[in-house]
Amino acid sequence: MLQRKDLNPNALRAQYAVRGPIVDRAQQLEAQGRRIVYCNIGNPQALRQKPVTYLRQLLSLVEYPPLLDAPEVAKLYPPDVVARARRLLEQHPPGTGAYTQSAGLGFVREAVAAFIARRDGIPTDPKRVLLTDGASKGIDLVLQALVQGPATGIMVPVPQYPLYSATVARYGGARVDYALDEAAGWQLTEGELERAAGEAIRHGVRPVAIAVINPGNPTGAVLRPETIAMVARFARRHGLAILADEVYQDNVYAPDARFVSFARVLHDLNERDVSLFSFHSVSKGYLGECGHRGGYLEHRNLAEDVAQELTKLQSISLCSNIPGQIAVHVMVAPPQPGEPSHASYTAERAAILDGLKAKAEILAKGVRGIPGMSLVEPQGAMYAFVRLELPPEPGTDVESMTPERRREHESKRDSAWCLALLEETGICVVPGSGFGQAPGTLHFRTTFLPPREEIEGLVARLRDFHARYVQRLSAAPARP
Amino acid sequence: MLQRKDLNPNALRAQYAVRGPIVDRAQQLEAQGRRIVYCNIGNPQALRQKPVTYLRQLLSLVEYPPLLDAPEVAKLYPPDVVARARRLLEQHPPGTGAYTQSAGLGFVREAVAAFIARRDGIPTDPKRVLLTDGASKGIDLVLQALVQGPATGIMVPVPQYPLYSATVARYGGARVDYALDEAAGWQLTEGELERAAGEAIRHGVRPVAIAVINPGNPTGAVLRPETIAMVARFARRHGLAILADEVYQDNVYAPDARFVSFARVLHDLNERDVSLFSFHSVSKGYLGECGHRGGYLEHRNLAEDVAQELTKLQSISLCSNIPGQIAVHVMVAPPQPGEPSHASYTAERAAILDGLKAKAEILAKGVRGIPGMSLVEPQGAMYAFVRLELPPEPGTDVESMTPERRREHESKRDSAWCLALLEETGICVVPGSGFGQAPGTLHFRTTFLPPREEIEGLVARLRDFHARYVQRLSAAPARP
Repeated sequence: MLQRKDLNPNALRAQYAVRGPIVDRAQQLEAQGRRIVYCNIGNPQALRQKPVTYLRQLLSLVEYPPLLDAPEVAKLYPPDVVARARRLLEQHPPGTGAYTQSAGLGFVREAVAAFIARRDGIPTDPKRVLLTDGASKGIDLVLQALVQGPATGIMVPVPQYPLYSATVARYGGARVDYALDEAAGWQLTEGELERAAGEAIRHGVRPVAIAVINPGNPTGAVLRPETIAMVARFARRHGLAILADEVYQDNVYAPDARFVSFARVLHDLNERDVSLFSFHSVSKGYLGECGHRGGYLEHRNLAEDVAQELTKLQSISLCSNIPGQIAVHVMVAPPQPGEPSHASYTAERAAILDGLKAKAEILAKGVRGIPGMSLVEPQGAMYAFVRLELPPEPGTDVESMTPERRREHESKRDSAWCLALLEETGICVVPGSGFGQAPGTLHFRTTFLPPREEIEGLVARLRDFHARYVQRLSAAPARP
Repeated sequence: MLQRKDLNPNALRAQYAVRGPIVDRAQQLEAQGRRIVYCNIGNPQALRQKPVTYLRQLLSLVEYPPLLDAPEVAKLYPPDVVARARRLLEQHPPGTGAYTQSAGLGFVREAVAAFIARRDGIPTDPKRVLLTDGASKGIDLVLQALVQGPATGIMVPVPQYPLYSATVARYGGARVDYALDEAAGWQLTEGELERAAGEAIRHGVRPVAIAVINPGNPTGAVLRPETIAMVARFARRHGLAILADEVYQDNVYAPDARFVSFARVLHDLNERDVSLFSFHSVSKGYLGECGHRGGYLEHRNLAEDVAQELTKLQSISLCSNIPGQIAVHVMVAPPQPGEPSHASYTAERAAILDGLKAKAEILAKGVRGIPGMSLVEPQGAMYAFVRLELPPEPGTDVESMTPERRREHESKRDSAWCLALLEETGICVVPGSGFGQAPGTLHFRTTFLPPREEIEGLVARLRDFHARYVQRLSAAPARP
């Protein structure tokens, strides 16, 4: 019988905290009848965000084309949705039922290219677009192609979204951590990138790519165009490809922040040598359609035969799912002014994004008022990465620990805090150690996705719990 | 800029003939206005197989829940579909919009377990079921966990479905080929399994798993229970896990053949040590819902911590898509007698399966009548693996070639044949070398999915083309 020892050690090493032991425990408690508030994952519709009507109407018609010929259809669906469903089935008669080309439906890829051209004012090419099952699968595809072994370095931010660390581990590569500066609003600096790359090279690791998440997960920081340009120059100097995770591009709330894409900055720099992969998804933004697993990757400055290899790798699992491809189509080609659904689509989008903005503010303000908690106010995305102060553990001298030992120690501390929070309040968040954090700091990541009217209560429960927890820790006897 | 040489050589090595250069050429021709008959891939709805109404009605309602409250719904949907959609949304209120648990929706996993219990009369456990994006992703998951490097052997049939060879290559493992015996109706024999394993071990490769496709792709052979028992004993002797690819379990046409699952045979043998992974999909059978990317894997005799590792790997890309999970639910829990949709569901299923059976027979009979072609009549699945006779190439002595050189030579010959067939007739099939074939034999794989009335025309075109091709070859001057 297969045992754990028979498995690929790289697979065993991969850790994905967003779905780790704390979430397992939450599900156990839920099965026992406890009410759990899942703030561990950016899963808006699980927390009662309503789907955007237009997309669901379209999917509903495309899944069951005989509806299009029913006289009742005119009562149930706006005419532009009906027209779009008909057009879609003309362009692709098997609808949702058949594999598409490996890279996805041609007209959806064209719409993605047009969307990028419109967003950024730059030339695009549908041939550079690959439709994927969520952004996750696109990132997996690229890392799978790039990682050759333990000497291949992938630069990853700290803190990061653990898809990156897990996937690099799974494919046996070396993660090259670069730290984001919490004191500087989680921005990234050239000095730190150079330090990280230099240290990797001294350890025999050759960095081949850098992953950048913008807007940041878990930090919520939005990169300035000059920072993106700095990353591009850095990548050029070191011969790195860039993986630009831009799935939160529609989730920018701070009035002084603005999403600027890597594609745009590379174009402005007239950069033609740095290979770029950018990723987008229907799971975030305002659609929040996590269950449909739709996404795309667009690449630039890539040798033609490399692009072919990516498509080949994608072809092994045939193609991404078609409802997800259709969701991508709606995301990049929403109803236009003059079309009957335009007003309602725009209003639903605004309500969702305004709601997220308001919730981010309420949460940030609330958390900042809790003694022992602080945070850089998120400018975007769906998360607050909250810094946590805990009294030092009596009898434990962290300064004398090796960095690994210290990381382990601090990981136990933030995990214990998150587990106690879950057990006592039903709030499920993810320990900062699951994303990475500077030595000597503790954090947790929470989404700000629960319904607005619940956020203040959530903050109150966090405050009361933390006070109790700190008191218990302070009262605990020193370890022998 | 990234070049091909920068990519993981394992990724470069992976080949997937079902979507290879011949299909690329077909798409080029199609873009130029040629009519192409895609017989390269089991993609029934692309060849006008109609979707099963009940599933699409259900998906249509679940995608757009406000329909459930519209007075018109009673006119448009049968009451059992409406009730099922309501039940589904009660069990999982976010419907298709949210990530599920990594392993998939609990009630779907329970329905899968109940389906297997009913099909096989054996105990099952929903905890052993993982919902995946098609069977492909389940197979990928297991191979990813098992393959540790070039000394890990995965036994794969010849001919095989190239997902296996591609995935083993991609993860850097060693493919251990075992030959199916064409003369014995593509059955597999103990002697050949022992030969293959022994040869691998002599070359420093340790076989850890054996993949078996039943009913066979591309062969169409249905395994006898005693053959399955033989494989189980072989696996036990060598400490192998079994990957049972059972996606064609509903596609059995020969009156004397019957699908028996590996799970059933292992249970009958009281085998508690051989780890089993079995795979199923909504893409084949009678649903043919390739675009929905739904599937499951069920495992048995697996250490608990190994099962947890599989779920962890799955969690990194969150979960499989929800419409696909719902399609799995319908496949394993179709409407029951007494429910309004039962009769139509049963009739549609029978029409599709009867149609496939009839088409298999027409194609097999037709091909057998073509001089220079022969085949083992497919007992199941969706393919005919047709053997092709070509006159020897003048001036080429295949007998003096190394096995690799000979394989390459023969691969050029069957690829050239398929390419010429495509250019001259618009029929797109896959060369036998893409699946593997015995030295000295040439084949092609064609689906029998085109509409029934087209199959005879297809056979006629194959006959005429092959005669011309052989004539041209015979008339060609010897190579210098």
